[in-house]
Amino acid sequence: MRDIAVIGIGMMKWGELWEKSIRDLAVEASLNCLADAGIDRVDTISIGCMSGGIFNGQEHLASMIPDYLGMKNTPAMRVESACASGGLAVRTAFLEIASGMSDYALAVGVEKMTDVSGGEATDGLATAADQDYEAFNGINFPGLYALMAKAHMHRYGTTREQMADVAVKNHRNGNLNPLAQFPGLMTREQVMNSVMVADPLRLMDCSPITDGAAAVLLTTVEEAKRLKKHPLVVISGIGLASDTIQLCQRKDILKCPAIELAGQKALKMAGKTIRDINFAEIHDCFTISEIMIMEELGIVERGQGGPATSAGHTALDGKFPINTSGGLKSKGHPVGATGVAQIYEVVTQLRGTAGKRQLKNAKVGMTQNMGGSGGSCVIHILEAKS
Amino acid sequence: MRDIAVIGIGMMKWGELWEKSIRDLAVEASLNCLADAGIDRVDTISIGCMSGGIFNGQEHLASMIPDYLGMKNTPAMRVESACASGGLAVRTAFLEIASGMSDYALAVGVEKMTDVSGGEATDGLATAADQDYEAFNGINFPGLYALMAKAHMHRYGTTREQMADVAVKNHRNGNLNPLAQFPGLMTREQVMNSVMVADPLRLMDCSPITDGAAAVLLTTVEEAKRLKKHPLVVISGIGLASDTIQLCQRKDILKCPAIELAGQKALKMAGKTIRDINFAEIHDCFTISEIMIMEELGIVERGQGGPATSAGHTALDGKFPINTSGGLKSKGHPVGATGVAQIYEVVTQLRGTAGKRQLKNAKVGMTQNMGGSGGSCVIHILEAKS
Repeated sequence: MRDIAVIGIGMMKWGELWEKSIRDLAVEASLNCLADAGIDRVDTISIGCMSGGIFNGQEHLASMIPDYLGMKNTPAMRVESACASGGLAVRTAFLEIASGMSDYALAVGVEKMTDVSGGEATDGLATAADQDYEAFNGINFPGLYALMAKAHMHRYGTTREQMADVAVKNHRNGNLNPLAQFPGLMTREQVMNSVMVADPLRLMDCSPITDGAAAVLLTTVEEAKRLKKHPLVVISGIGLASDTIQLCQRKDILKCPAIELAGQKALKMAGKTIRDINFAEIHDCFTISEIMIMEELGIVERGQGGPATSAGHTALDGKFPINTSGGLKSKGHPVGATGVAQIYEVVTQLRGTAGKRQLKNAKVGMTQNMGGSGGSCVIHILEAKS
Repeated sequence: MRDIAVIGIGMMKWGELWEKSIRDLAVEASLNCLADAGIDRVDTISIGCMSGGIFNGQEHLASMIPDYLGMKNTPAMRVESACASGGLAVRTAFLEIASGMSDYALAVGVEKMTDVSGGEATDGLATAADQDYEAFNGINFPGLYALMAKAHMHRYGTTREQMADVAVKNHRNGNLNPLAQFPGLMTREQVMNSVMVADPLRLMDCSPITDGAAAVLLTTVEEAKRLKKHPLVVISGIGLASDTIQLCQRKDILKCPAIELAGQKALKMAGKTIRDINFAEIHDCFTISEIMIMEELGIVERGQGGPATSAGHTALDGKFPINTSGGLKSKGHPVGATGVAQIYEVVTQLRGTAGKRQLKNAKVGMTQNMGGSGGSCVIHILEAKS
């Protein structure tokens, strides 16, 4: 298998981007990425998007995006695994190059969610759950994650304050990210007094509905060394796994085997343990998710996600910084774009160009991108190489 | 790049399968495929589906299908390029193995289209066109292909009779395929007297709305030789290309560069010319499509698709048999499944197990699967190896 590097990254400020269509977003992020790479060779394009069909009445992005990018005829595919679609797009670009089918592969993640109402967006997102057995019966994602939160509080003594501290920390990081949708600072009290969505989760425990896109350009390490535009960043590990789509089918509502397995695979491929990872972007679709994922990946012991957060261990200056970008919570969560934007942030940190939120020790980073209530998970490990 | 073989194929009789859900269909085809392969090792699953979101309110098949297949935790992805989603799923499975990431890759294509009304299905399919500039303004696929048909009749003198003969031939083949949705024989007059859909295309020029699934299992040639359950069938060439999503943006409404480019790539990879191909399954979503695709691939000269059809050159006993399965027209067109079912048919012919529709000279076959009005195209070349 060929060794793969990330040589370009592109995004835009995320938000409610009324004046931009899904095609505009994908094209803008891609052009920013190619400008960053200083090259416009693209052999193949993989597009991560959860539901252009439901949100925009637009499937067939594999034709539309190369076309509007001025690269018609370029081989392209759209990939989807709900909110893990972006991570999947990066993995697909990786496969294209690893197999020798392509030398330069662009991965772009995009979602334009505000073409429909907030209620319709929540219903659209619920198609990532089991339609026949979950969504049809009235439970959607805030409800599913609320069940996990209640169980976590009951079993481990996780507190409302600890969950709020995830949001406070992520908004503190997002405040330093000029591309974040909601960069405003937030206090623990503000989170805990925000409107109730699904007990115990309140509005400020939930990631927002967002329009946005992100893109990364991959090539072989050999080509990257020849180009030398940026410090070398390689993808050393990838893990992908699935699990039951229904939360109620899990053996343990607080264990998420897709995350554990994807993490093990990625670490094995990279020849590392979790102790070798310096920082991570993880899928904080709800505050409780960040706590559970930290535990599932072995960053902390089971039940210690809440206390570790409140102790500052996952802050920018903590032992293991998490979501330096602001995460889904503050940066925003245009679902198909999120997994690609996680790579954007890790590469930015590994290059040492993260500005005010730059970590001191950023050599090895991880991204963890997840679909549904943990029905699928994609994990990447990236390393700065000198 | 590793050499890849097809070691298992699975389908079911297609039709209006009211009693089966999208998950049932995907699982049934997959289990049939694994039974055919005589093995149940699956390292990864790629799922081709155009729009589970619109047709079934169900995204995240990458979690649901492995789960219901009894293979939860298996890495999976859903891929989409409108009606070319099935071909893309096979190509993705190929990449998985070619890259060394997996050794056994299952590709399953599925679409459950009768959960919505016929009008809603046509609207859903129109999301493969440009929503903002084509679909929104009222043109859908029968209309787009009718424009091409009119232009083809005008430029090349293609006749209504010749188009009807495509349907007559495909129903004659489908009549020999126990899995076809509409195996009934049809006369030229019946096609030409069927109800008008979009002038000059009548109902019997159009592929139907179908529920169905198909699956294929790939592994390395080395593994296939070790297993030896079936005659060896290898995938020797793959081509993927895109083009403008809007028909009106083409330089020539009768040329489809995505087909031409994908064909050239696949032939180059296989080290062949179109003269080396014995037969093909091609994307006859409308009768005019089969005529245009034959010409675009160079099977016949431009303008000769109609006359060649009426002369019987593409019949079972013709010089270059096309759509021995009955094609989309008679076998049915569950959009995400079609590209995988094309592989099913070619493998069946190459194995020599096609029964009454078995070709005498089937050594090298081609599949051509297309999205939208030609905005994307995936082509595979398969060969029987002794």
